[in-house]
Amino acid sequence: MRLLNIADTMVTAPIAISMGDPAGIGPEIIAKSWDVRTAHGIPPFIAVGDARALRSVWAGPIRTINDPRDAVGVFDDAIPVLSVEDGGSIVPGMPDTEGARCALHSLELAAGLVRSGASSALVTGPVSKSQLYGIGFTYPGQTEFVAERCGISGENAVMMLAGPGLKVVPITTHIPLSAVPAALSIDLVIAKGRATARGLKRNFGIEAPRIVFAGLNPHAGEDGALGREEIDILAPAIRQLRAEGIDADGPFAADTLFHPRARARYDAALCCYHDQALVPLKTLYFDDGVNITLGLPIVRTSPDHGTAFGIAGKDCAEPGAMIAAIKMAAAAAEQRARNATV
Amino acid sequence: MRLLNIADTMVTAPIAISMGDPAGIGPEIIAKSWDVRTAHGIPPFIAVGDARALRSVWAGPIRTINDPRDAVGVFDDAIPVLSVEDGGSIVPGMPDTEGARCALHSLELAAGLVRSGASSALVTGPVSKSQLYGIGFTYPGQTEFVAERCGISGENAVMMLAGPGLKVVPITTHIPLSAVPAALSIDLVIAKGRATARGLKRNFGIEAPRIVFAGLNPHAGEDGALGREEIDILAPAIRQLRAEGIDADGPFAADTLFHPRARARYDAALCCYHDQALVPLKTLYFDDGVNITLGLPIVRTSPDHGTAFGIAGKDCAEPGAMIAAIKMAAAAAEQRARNATV
Repeated sequence: MRLLNIADTMVTAPIAISMGDPAGIGPEIIAKSWDVRTAHGIPPFIAVGDARALRSVWAGPIRTINDPRDAVGVFDDAIPVLSVEDGGSIVPGMPDTEGARCALHSLELAAGLVRSGASSALVTGPVSKSQLYGIGFTYPGQTEFVAERCGISGENAVMMLAGPGLKVVPITTHIPLSAVPAALSIDLVIAKGRATARGLKRNFGIEAPRIVFAGLNPHAGEDGALGREEIDILAPAIRQLRAEGIDADGPFAADTLFHPRARARYDAALCCYHDQALVPLKTLYFDDGVNITLGLPIVRTSPDHGTAFGIAGKDCAEPGAMIAAIKMAAAAAEQRARNATV
Repeated sequence: MRLLNIADTMVTAPIAISMGDPAGIGPEIIAKSWDVRTAHGIPPFIAVGDARALRSVWAGPIRTINDPRDAVGVFDDAIPVLSVEDGGSIVPGMPDTEGARCALHSLELAAGLVRSGASSALVTGPVSKSQLYGIGFTYPGQTEFVAERCGISGENAVMMLAGPGLKVVPITTHIPLSAVPAALSIDLVIAKGRATARGLKRNFGIEAPRIVFAGLNPHAGEDGALGREEIDILAPAIRQLRAEGIDADGPFAADTLFHPRARARYDAALCCYHDQALVPLKTLYFDDGVNITLGLPIVRTSPDHGTAFGIAGKDCAEPGAMIAAIKMAAAAAEQRARNATV
């Protein structure tokens, strides 16, 4: 495999980062990522959102641009901003309706830049779902909104959470735990398995991805003694994936699937529900977890945390997850460009 | 707080370790623990089980004793063994009926030594539940058997899993995931909370234990949007515990409860189901997790792993969890002796 240097890449368009809610920590972690651009090898990006949100938390240089092609030239000296203003005052930690509208317009503009090819990848800053719902947003989250803007149904966009040594995909996501067993089906498990294998190849360049499945029940059901979903749903789905040539294995007991030796045996673990996937990921990588959406025609990542209104404006937000999200987006965009040229 | 040196302790009786299934890795990890007794500060113990099981995997010195009072004098030079033989041949990795019977008799004898005061604490080696069921064992596991031998009902014996930086208590244990929501009740949560707080004080000397509860649902239910168990069951139980003077908090989103900064805020986390507790524990401490039973009149710990028949007899079993279980048992026995004298 040929290793490309970011500086020599064929991907020359900047990354588009939507700032997220202007009252959250999005602007601060974008600015802090720019601060360490050289040390961390962060490629040029455009911040899409209200320039005032950056100024309210950061004293560094900002340059408002109108043409995304100007971003790369500006990036060495200032954060290039495509400014989206929706009025209102911006007070870190105090979200409001105008801020939610600004976050939505920023997301829409940033996604459009990537779809048009003006940007190479999309990184989304954290938004407040409850604020967005307040202005009539009807999607479960940014992922589904971006998917629809790309002409993909929300169900076919697969959420993967990735840290330096672990990638997980929750098969079901934001539903009550009591609804999980009924939500699992052979078809759903197969669909998530296929999307994960394809996504590992397409975004991470893993030629023959090894995916594993966690069982739903304690000890993966102990041959049916502690639940039958492993036998009735997971095992047949895994057999089908293997028949399609995918290196799928399991179901395995979840509790012994995430220690270092176990993690060395697979590229991604598919989990039956939200916490089964998110507990190990955030236990290990709380400060640098990245959410990457598989199944989209564009590259989209985001830092795996929320708006953190409680600490906004206090200059104490950790930029680690944003830095990791930008770097993963850049690497995935390069990988896709490489795939297209070979 | 006064720190006691193991060598100066008022606890002079040896620890009793039941060997577990003679064909499992129990004998090997007991021998390997004795090998490092000086470097790890391991106090005198008696191995209770078939001496042949030790000999089949280890070439070191063994001394068969009949009186447990001889153990401390022997320990420097050899592993003191109270031998339990149930016939049959012993082949590592090949469990059989005689071995299961030997494991049960060893457990019974070791538990009796501790109840009588001849031993200071009980450490149980790994057994095969399916082998035990084959000889008519009717308890869910060793914990319930030991509890009953101590005159405690199995439900009042609380399983805590402990690693160097995390202690967890599963509120429900070996049941299908689909049965978890209905198994949770305010009374059960209160009972587990009380037992945990008491156990932290009694065994670990934590004067004012801080306990936290993980929510059942993603994001701890998001104010009811993703499930109501947090509102209907966990919150009222936590209020009651606080009214009793216990420093209980939550319910918190499980995924953000186990990273290092979060763990610094509590002494133990109570989780709604098996994997919610065991995934973070084994992700972080796969090789040195200890199972300690709270709510018993005696101290009982065990290494948090199984018989591992697949690697038995190959000299590759890691003794870390057994070493940790012995040291935790010794520390808890000391703590209880200290409690009794102040």
